[in-house]
Amino acid sequence: MADIQNCDSCSINPLDLFERVTTQGEKVRSLKAEKASKDEIDTAVKSLLSLKLSYKTVTGQDYKANSPPIDFTPMNNGSAMAEDEDFVDPWTVQTSNAKGIDYDKLLVRFGSSKIDNELINRIERVTGKKPHHFLRTGIFFSHRDMNQILDAYENKKPFYLYTGRGPSSEAMHVGHLIPFIFTKWLQEVFNVPLVIQLTDDEKYLWKDLTIEKAYQYAVENAKDIIACGFDINKTFIFSDLDYLGKSPGFYKNIVKVQKHVTFNQVKGIFGFSDSDCIGKISFPAIQAAPAFSSSFPLIFKETKGVQCLIPCAIDQDPYFRMTRDVAPRIGYPKPALLHSIFFPALQGAQTKMSASDPNSSIFLTDTPKQIKTKINKHAFSGGKDTVEEHRKYGGNCDVDVSYMYLTFFLEDDDKLEQMKQAYTNGALLTGELKKLLIETLQPLIAAHQQRRKEVTEEMVKEFMTPRKLAFDF
Amino acid sequence: MADIQNCDSCSINPLDLFERVTTQGEKVRSLKAEKASKDEIDTAVKSLLSLKLSYKTVTGQDYKANSPPIDFTPMNNGSAMAEDEDFVDPWTVQTSNAKGIDYDKLLVRFGSSKIDNELINRIERVTGKKPHHFLRTGIFFSHRDMNQILDAYENKKPFYLYTGRGPSSEAMHVGHLIPFIFTKWLQEVFNVPLVIQLTDDEKYLWKDLTIEKAYQYAVENAKDIIACGFDINKTFIFSDLDYLGKSPGFYKNIVKVQKHVTFNQVKGIFGFSDSDCIGKISFPAIQAAPAFSSSFPLIFKETKGVQCLIPCAIDQDPYFRMTRDVAPRIGYPKPALLHSIFFPALQGAQTKMSASDPNSSIFLTDTPKQIKTKINKHAFSGGKDTVEEHRKYGGNCDVDVSYMYLTFFLEDDDKLEQMKQAYTNGALLTGELKKLLIETLQPLIAAHQQRRKEVTEEMVKEFMTPRKLAFDF
Repeated sequence: MADIQNCDSCSINPLDLFERVTTQGEKVRSLKAEKASKDEIDTAVKSLLSLKLSYKTVTGQDYKANSPPIDFTPMNNGSAMAEDEDFVDPWTVQTSNAKGIDYDKLLVRFGSSKIDNELINRIERVTGKKPHHFLRTGIFFSHRDMNQILDAYENKKPFYLYTGRGPSSEAMHVGHLIPFIFTKWLQEVFNVPLVIQLTDDEKYLWKDLTIEKAYQYAVENAKDIIACGFDINKTFIFSDLDYLGKSPGFYKNIVKVQKHVTFNQVKGIFGFSDSDCIGKISFPAIQAAPAFSSSFPLIFKETKGVQCLIPCAIDQDPYFRMTRDVAPRIGYPKPALLHSIFFPALQGAQTKMSASDPNSSIFLTDTPKQIKTKINKHAFSGGKDTVEEHRKYGGNCDVDVSYMYLTFFLEDDDKLEQMKQAYTNGALLTGELKKLLIETLQPLIAAHQQRRKEVTEEMVKEFMTPRKLAFDF
Repeated sequence: MADIQNCDSCSINPLDLFERVTTQGEKVRSLKAEKASKDEIDTAVKSLLSLKLSYKTVTGQDYKANSPPIDFTPMNNGSAMAEDEDFVDPWTVQTSNAKGIDYDKLLVRFGSSKIDNELINRIERVTGKKPHHFLRTGIFFSHRDMNQILDAYENKKPFYLYTGRGPSSEAMHVGHLIPFIFTKWLQEVFNVPLVIQLTDDEKYLWKDLTIEKAYQYAVENAKDIIACGFDINKTFIFSDLDYLGKSPGFYKNIVKVQKHVTFNQVKGIFGFSDSDCIGKISFPAIQAAPAFSSSFPLIFKETKGVQCLIPCAIDQDPYFRMTRDVAPRIGYPKPALLHSIFFPALQGAQTKMSASDPNSSIFLTDTPKQIKTKINKHAFSGGKDTVEEHRKYGGNCDVDVSYMYLTFFLEDDDKLEQMKQAYTNGALLTGELKKLLIETLQPLIAAHQQRRKEVTEEMVKEFMTPRKLAFDF
């Protein structure tokens, strides 16, 4: 069965084509009913016949009114999968494998490209900077059109960065920092504008939250994001609930996307059902719109169609597959993407972490003692049951959460590799590995807490004020 | 079959109840899965049982997962109707009867109340003003909660008026003036703030129009609306495409409505299908939101929940039935409504007029000569074929379009009644009746054109600028 990414790669989606035939048929009928000129009717009929021909070519079937091409209906990301396959969408990440999601399979299923050594080397060549260790260790593992971005950069054409967060609670955990740490590196290396969307409207729609609470979470999360060290002159952070009512450019792009995406499509991409509220159904357009530069007229002025690069976790890809499908139809460039793997829960890589379970991860507010206790008590170990067995058989890094966390936060590739060998051959014990993680995370979190303390209300206000950034457009 | 107005009158909609049971069932399951506390689970289960009981009471059936109460599913306004019945929704008004829509039946089907003599007399008593002839002649024939508005007025409680227009083209016809003429009278009599919504986003979504064109139509239509004589100090006219990006209060109300309306509901109310774009599906919330005063923070400041009165043609009622259903669930008062009948096409009352057919009505840009020619050539006549027959049998005012138009524009009740008698008994010939209409419309249109010429760009800009009005809130 064709998957939705087909829209993206070949830009002929059978369902879309079906709808175009239907619409054109209606147009012909209404022209006839209105007794339009013969020329007008002939032109419309010709276009109808040509659409029907395309439809037959693509689907191998004749067009039949009211019978959409069922075999080609874009699939829910998981509904027809075999039981042992992973499920990934923006709300659920599920695998039965302790090693976590099979990312090679996901690459194929989502139709994105692997970040291989060739691309990493090109990034190094083009920027003259050592690639971030998230690239070297495969934490950012997948992309769409990153070579276009590098082409643009080489040709001194502007682009901008867009990332975001759904502020579902005040508490953020270390995993939430991954896209922001990487985005900060990208911003420094490429020196480009950055917009960060806080989807407080999404959280209001999906959760049992008031509008006021969702907005408050957005502001609190903004403080943690700012504490990552973004340049205030190059970064605009916005809450949807706030910014949507401050920028006609943003709403115009939302409504453009909303005109070009049907319920059938969001049903296929996101698994929405008829009993979902209309807010959820139309929300994907709100996450799509910041990928188009005219949503930010104060930043990009009259410069049209500045290309966008989106670093995000791979579960957000369905939004941007949709965005890329719509972009050319509304006259905008497709955004490029860089996808990260998921940050595992302390209890194991089978699930994504939950901000509502305090023991599922290390939170940005945890004390050194809490960090130590949580890791010692909850971090799933790939080690053996006894020291003797461990020395004899070695530990399993593929399922060991402490090791996984270290791949995220230990920037020294050589040290990481030594550790992996020592753990695998039994020289390094689980307790020792955990100690290393504790000693890595404690100063990292403490430093974050210190920087967050230094974030003033005025800084938050400025970051969140629509304004010109330090770039000339 | 229960119609959607049931939500409104008894606030227990079986489908809504079905969804609440489903949601509560999911909550119980997820609490159990999360191993929540026994208390928490018990409370959720109790609530589930009570909801199931309510469901059985209302539908007479046991709740069954995945089987919505089909007999109670809110109906498409027309799909299951007998062939000889009228069809009315915001996009289509259809009847096979030359007399036009059967409004008495529509009252019953929509569940609204007739504007009877008692109400008209009360309006006169409360305001001390002679009721507008649109009330006296039954052109505004239906209402919801108008007595509440009069109560508020008597108790010196504030309320405000909200009406609107979908700017589908530059050209407006005389029929489009009806709600504005009446709204102007209401504003003068009650001395209250008025907001006028131009749904240019709706027209962009429904028609083959660019965003720029839709906005341009909105501005051009605003000039015709202003020419009706609204008080600039008491009236705010807004384009959705513009105002939505200027008022966080407006967007917050939109997203509140969007959270409380499901696709099932808009499908039932508006007949949307899975192949409709998500913009159409979520649009009803945008027409609903101006019925809540907090969408206009500059007008109402901190005063919460100011009641709204909406004068509109009856085809807009589905939007506001939905609005009234949602209002109490988001803590707002239900808007009251005054409904008008439709303005007939020159060719006969079987259809609503179309702004795209120049001969279907008298346009606000028509010259005196065009008015004369159109009426003489196209106005459907209820007269007999020959003068002799007409003198003998008389004409039929029920289907005569010239007579219908005169009921809208001839303010002298006595003269209208005399004319009706003379036409019915054959004393007045069709040509003479048409002449009377021509002589009524020519000066009316000319005066409108003169006033429109006097509308400056500055006036339009001021009317369309979000601002405080001449009322203290």
